[in-house]
Amino acid sequence: MNAPGPAIHATQPDQVFDWLDTEAANRAEAGLTRRLRPRGATSDELDLAGNDYLGLARDKRVAGAAAAATLRWGAGSTGSRLVTGSTELHSELEHELARFCGVQAALVFSSGFTANLGAVTALSGGESAIVTDKYIHASLIEGCRLSRADVAAVAHGDPSAVAHALATRRKARALVVTDSVFSVDGDLAPLGELSGVCREHGAALLVDDAHGFGVLGEGGRGAVHEAGLAGQPDVVTTVTLSKAFGAQGGAVLGPRRVIKHLVETARSFIFDTGLAPGSAAAALAALGVLRAEPDLPDKVLTAANGLAAGLREAGLRVSAPAGAVVSVRAPGAEDAKRWAEACAEQGIRVGCFRPPSVPDGVSRLRLTARADLAESDVDRAVKVIAELAPPRARSTP
Amino acid sequence: MNAPGPAIHATQPDQVFDWLDTEAANRAEAGLTRRLRPRGATSDELDLAGNDYLGLARDKRVAGAAAAATLRWGAGSTGSRLVTGSTELHSELEHELARFCGVQAALVFSSGFTANLGAVTALSGGESAIVTDKYIHASLIEGCRLSRADVAAVAHGDPSAVAHALATRRKARALVVTDSVFSVDGDLAPLGELSGVCREHGAALLVDDAHGFGVLGEGGRGAVHEAGLAGQPDVVTTVTLSKAFGAQGGAVLGPRRVIKHLVETARSFIFDTGLAPGSAAAALAALGVLRAEPDLPDKVLTAANGLAAGLREAGLRVSAPAGAVVSVRAPGAEDAKRWAEACAEQGIRVGCFRPPSVPDGVSRLRLTARADLAESDVDRAVKVIAELAPPRARSTP
Repeated sequence: MNAPGPAIHATQPDQVFDWLDTEAANRAEAGLTRRLRPRGATSDELDLAGNDYLGLARDKRVAGAAAAATLRWGAGSTGSRLVTGSTELHSELEHELARFCGVQAALVFSSGFTANLGAVTALSGGESAIVTDKYIHASLIEGCRLSRADVAAVAHGDPSAVAHALATRRKARALVVTDSVFSVDGDLAPLGELSGVCREHGAALLVDDAHGFGVLGEGGRGAVHEAGLAGQPDVVTTVTLSKAFGAQGGAVLGPRRVIKHLVETARSFIFDTGLAPGSAAAALAALGVLRAEPDLPDKVLTAANGLAAGLREAGLRVSAPAGAVVSVRAPGAEDAKRWAEACAEQGIRVGCFRPPSVPDGVSRLRLTARADLAESDVDRAVKVIAELAPPRARSTP
Repeated sequence: MNAPGPAIHATQPDQVFDWLDTEAANRAEAGLTRRLRPRGATSDELDLAGNDYLGLARDKRVAGAAAAATLRWGAGSTGSRLVTGSTELHSELEHELARFCGVQAALVFSSGFTANLGAVTALSGGESAIVTDKYIHASLIEGCRLSRADVAAVAHGDPSAVAHALATRRKARALVVTDSVFSVDGDLAPLGELSGVCREHGAALLVDDAHGFGVLGEGGRGAVHEAGLAGQPDVVTTVTLSKAFGAQGGAVLGPRRVIKHLVETARSFIFDTGLAPGSAAAALAALGVLRAEPDLPDKVLTAANGLAAGLREAGLRVSAPAGAVVSVRAPGAEDAKRWAEACAEQGIRVGCFRPPSVPDGVSRLRLTARADLAESDVDRAVKVIAELAPPRARSTP
């Protein structure tokens, strides 16, 4: 029954995925195997791995609002935002997000991932140049790949490299794309300088503030607000509702005409089911908590700085945290994995970032601070992580 | 302050997005303006536009389970599925989905959109050929664009065109990609024939069963199950939890090694926050309802066939529905929009699909049936839609 043809393999049905096993064996050999480790509803572990920076995912005001909205509006939004998936809850959330952040308008997506895909693709295209920091989040990279634009990824945190790429671009229209707080090392992009460079070169600036929103800036208004760029006509921000806001979803914030353009053209908006009403309600409630407790974000920074200082004193190679993320270098992927597992055995859950989740190929423990960490939690974490450090961790470059 | 360079425009900050206004004006002229129309929590409208095919989004068993899980597990999953975003709820849902559909394993994503991105990209790559039906869903198209594979989009519903593309491909590894029930016209892909062609040519088959899952097959097990392809070693299925299941999220179903590969390599899985626990619980509850009421899916088909028959009798150009989706051709984009708006004024909400949401450029009304539609609802809808049809709708080719 095999048809003729140059590239036909007489593969049996149970052989077409054999190549997956080969790739799995290669990953295992490189120490890069990953597996899911489901958690229970409650745990005695100290969680330094999640992104629930303000401790709001389980806050009764937030979870309670989500539960009530689910009962009132249903478990799902039932369609694309352009068909039946837009409820008055979504509108209210968009209005409140825009007001809180000091921008004209906002648009809620079902995830930060799809918000980034939508913003990058809709604001560029075949007639555009995109210049990115080379360490931007995977979802922004996917957006660039989908954009059909000329894409240049330049040195990390280097406005002059951005300026050079903009000056030598071949397309008139240009978009500069960066994270605010980078997800792996937790360092902050030079947003003010980047904006200056954009203005010198007639480019728009798109900032993914996933790790800054709810943590940095006045009352948690984010890194873009802190840099004085909120509400600027040439700046667009993406945020996530699934980290500091404890919910699910993402949003794009910016000038009204940008939001209108996304509604009409962003494929990851048009062709996706709208965010579940419960998640929209949770994000709205989290916004209410932030307004009521504007000091909450400072507690995250205090905890992050405590973790970083303690681990640095213990001789480890620790990043300087701009927000909640603290990263500790490991000698290698296998070492990082064993280190994280040893911490887990001592009741401390830390993130373990290995290729391909680290843009520079350096494996790390990644710790995240939370507003509700006690000083004693920080002290215990520092003690355990330092004690369990592999021998070469202190001399890792 | 303008730097020198060939492509620099002396653009002011408030001018960098002027091109968006130009594009908006072009869309307005073509009758392709879209805007959000938020709905309230309750409505007297007859909804023939949403994808809540089994009427489960507001079912107390489903919404109640979501609310309870939100209170117990929190409003968000707090991280990537590979860090803190996998709960025992996610595992249970994956286990039950696999068992229900007769496959080895399942993996839950935060949306059907990201599930499709992940499945297409992880199961292809630069060493692969992809052959797709040219009417596949936008999320699959985005996956193909991201895949780095050789991509051939062939004639709609044409296994011989797929065979030809496979026979003339330049890469040994191959993946055939199709929707089961196509989202615009509601027609069913020839899955059995496509599987045969794949086997003749050593290709794997990926089916997006978004509109078949919960509607077609024994007790709603989907179009892939109905075609006898569930559990085959060379077949992978994606489903959504946001249509018949009334929740949010998506899943990939297939051989265990495929699921393991996705966990370790799919970027839209690794770099996305896990689905909210409440949405996972809602999907689990919907699965329970389907098991308890295996006749529920038949009611969708009865309603869809009733709509299609009535509108055809009224002289309109109606698709033959394989599942819940019934489409009615309109003479043009403006006509379609006015027709849909006129129906809404009479209390009947229908979908209006215009470019770029229609792959063949033909604007349509798109109706969706639900299990809980009464015969009187169907009769009223047919009457109103037929009466309001624009003059040329009956002679549209």
